Amino acid sequence: MKLDIDQQLLQSEIDALAGYSSEPPPVVTRVVYSEADREARVYVKGLFAEAGLDVREDPIGNAFARWVGSEPELPPVGTGSHIDAIPNAGKYDGTVGVLGGLEAIRALQRGGFTPRRSIELLLFTAEEPTRFGIGCPGSRMLAGALTAEAAGQLRDRDEASLNELRAAAGFGGELADVALPRGYYEYFVELHIEQGPLLEREGLSIGIVQSIAAPAGLNILIEGEGGHAGTVLMPDRKDAFTAAAELALAIEGLTKQLGGSDTVATVGKCEVFPGAVNSIPNRVKMSLDLRDTDGARRDRVLDAVGIAAKEIAARRRVAITTELLNADAPAPCDTQIIEASRAACEAHGIPYREMVSRAYHDSLFMHRVCPMGMIFIPCRGGVSHRPDEYSSPEQIAAGALVLAETLARLAGGAE
Amino acid sequence: MKLDIDQQLLQSEIDALAGYSSEPPPVVTRVVYSEADREARVYVKGLFAEAGLDVREDPIGNAFARWVGSEPELPPVGTGSHIDAIPNAGKYDGTVGVLGGLEAIRALQRGGFTPRRSIELLLFTAEEPTRFGIGCPGSRMLAGALTAEAAGQLRDRDEASLNELRAAAGFGGELADVALPRGYYEYFVELHIEQGPLLEREGLSIGIVQSIAAPAGLNILIEGEGGHAGTVLMPDRKDAFTAAAELALAIEGLTKQLGGSDTVATVGKCEVFPGAVNSIPNRVKMSLDLRDTDGARRDRVLDAVGIAAKEIAARRRVAITTELLNADAPAPCDTQIIEASRAACEAHGIPYREMVSRAYHDSLFMHRVCPMGMIFIPCRGGVSHRPDEYSSPEQIAAGALVLAETLARLAGGAE
Repeated sequence: MKLDIDQQLLQSEIDALAGYSSEPPPVVTRVVYSEADREARVYVKGLFAEAGLDVREDPIGNAFARWVGSEPELPPVGTGSHIDAIPNAGKYDGTVGVLGGLEAIRALQRGGFTPRRSIELLLFTAEEPTRFGIGCPGSRMLAGALTAEAAGQLRDRDEASLNELRAAAGFGGELADVALPRGYYEYFVELHIEQGPLLEREGLSIGIVQSIAAPAGLNILIEGEGGHAGTVLMPDRKDAFTAAAELALAIEGLTKQLGGSDTVATVGKCEVFPGAVNSIPNRVKMSLDLRDTDGARRDRVLDAVGIAAKEIAARRRVAITTELLNADAPAPCDTQIIEASRAACEAHGIPYREMVSRAYHDSLFMHRVCPMGMIFIPCRGGVSHRPDEYSSPEQIAAGALVLAETLARLAGGAE
Repeated sequence: MKLDIDQQLLQSEIDALAGYSSEPPPVVTRVVYSEADREARVYVKGLFAEAGLDVREDPIGNAFARWVGSEPELPPVGTGSHIDAIPNAGKYDGTVGVLGGLEAIRALQRGGFTPRRSIELLLFTAEEPTRFGIGCPGSRMLAGALTAEAAGQLRDRDEASLNELRAAAGFGGELADVALPRGYYEYFVELHIEQGPLLEREGLSIGIVQSIAAPAGLNILIEGEGGHAGTVLMPDRKDAFTAAAELALAIEGLTKQLGGSDTVATVGKCEVFPGAVNSIPNRVKMSLDLRDTDGARRDRVLDAVGIAAKEIAARRRVAITTELLNADAPAPCDTQIIEASRAACEAHGIPYREMVSRAYHDSLFMHRVCPMGMIFIPCRGGVSHRPDEYSSPEQIAAGALVLAETLARLAGGAE
């Protein structure tokens, strides 16, 4: 099929969307339900409407823009991503999947294509965990992976609840109505920047995702005994920080030893109390983010970390307690979507590879609704979540092209 | 000599002084130049005057209360301590040396003693580093260990300078006039709570200090490379926090391996940036407080820490930079003061031991002015810098008694 992506239009829309930010350019900060997020939604929904799509929003603010197919009673093919951005972020994460999805639909329309199944473009509410501490509440709720009760009670750092905030942002109705029935979509496929260095390193335009790694999140509390930095001798100490340091190194070592090449562990937060130069730390709070494409392997590492924590606690005479915040299952991508994406690349002579998504995305939860796949494009240096995040207009257009061809193949239809 | 310590009066004054606090009892918070500190000074100076002492204050707020001896032209014997308290502290640290010193003088007066040398009671400004980040600015300036220029420019966390703050607290004059000539005192001896567990553990009333350990302070900055916790594989990471953890453990290990039983190392602060659950740390700021009674040994440990930091930085491909904030010399106590204190204990049948001061005190700096010594009393559980810091009225009275006898022996004189 002949497909023309309007690279210039798509880039101008990405640039315009980046203007909806709580901080001046080049920074994009667009936290869910903030003024920037609300204004950005108005802009994007306007583009959806201009393309002739039927737009609806659900009670948490997920937006659905449908291009009705010739057999509208069939389950549609879904695509889309998110437009929220963490503080001090860039303009491509998420937005490429929303605006690139829109341009894919427009390209199909311009090519005179009529889909058999409807094609529905989604804008998910809050992929980022910034505001509520949990990623993907929008797609989690669509998938039934987050209950209406739990979601409504999520609070931000100012103790405002998701329920209050969504109401203030104009989203009414019952959260219980957000969940979609299983099989609501026939397929879901998301276009996204890689957020890693592989495609750029290998000079490839497209990554076809085979599986999405999933994180386990742990809060770790270490309680020792404080004291004066001068007067408590080394053998008498129950220093919470040296115990934390040993546990952090054990986490790193066990991940390398027991994990595979896809297993990654990060201690991203470490708070030391009382935090004075001349006081022995009596308490440390650490976070652990452990991810793998193989859930069983990830859980083996997690178990080994628990054993190491017990050993360190006993030997150093401190208390170590852990709280498992989440342990989402990794998700395999659907072979038919992979096949369609591969055929799309080959039809347009676009070089690609198959790969793993080490970041998680709304697609991880859409996997519970329907067969799911992802298409990656390169980003410079693998950098993401920073103002210097960058994919070129050509790279984005290639992604939109492969997405359009993939959607056409999955939806069926005729020129 | 017959000496009666008025235990009840002394305790009532300690209790009254504890009432001058920025926070309600049992907490004592009395940061230098705060309203609580200024009011406390008025109270204490009133007690000095009631005892017939001549009171003067210097431009930084050190107060001197002199009991004039029979040979007033001779260099006096000094005693005293501080009354400032870190946030959330107790009521004995420092104050026992000021009010106990006052009661020692009153006991000598009541006993009909006339000292040959004058006895001068000092109240030092800001032993605690709370406000200006550096401990003992008052005694450091007396000793010429802190220049007037550097002192005046010290700033608190609100960017107010010591010069502005001392003026607001009513202390005028030139900081350059604070320094005392070497030999201004014949001896200086300070009564203080132990802030460690040894005396209580051994059931002893008095510790006679033989030397004061001194700290070296280091700021450590570790710079790695941030990134997404999911997408950067373990071998590609330059995680600033795991490097910091390894350095903290190296510090602990080298201190135990190269140091003696008196060598103590504390990493009391560790700040991790950006400090997000799903971000690899790109920067860590840590503090090191390293103390020893043997300055050369301490510096050997410090050198070894520097070598370890270089090795860790190279292997983990991060940058580690260190800034030496201070490296004060440990100070030996004067043998004649030790001898006088020992004789005082024996004269009154008070059980004692000789020991090291692992905390540093104003006496560490008074060592540069004159021969120096310290007398410790037990404190419950070795606990200090906390509201539950405690020494019994009997323990405090025993300390005041030994101090009085020691001062009499050092000053000379007659009943």
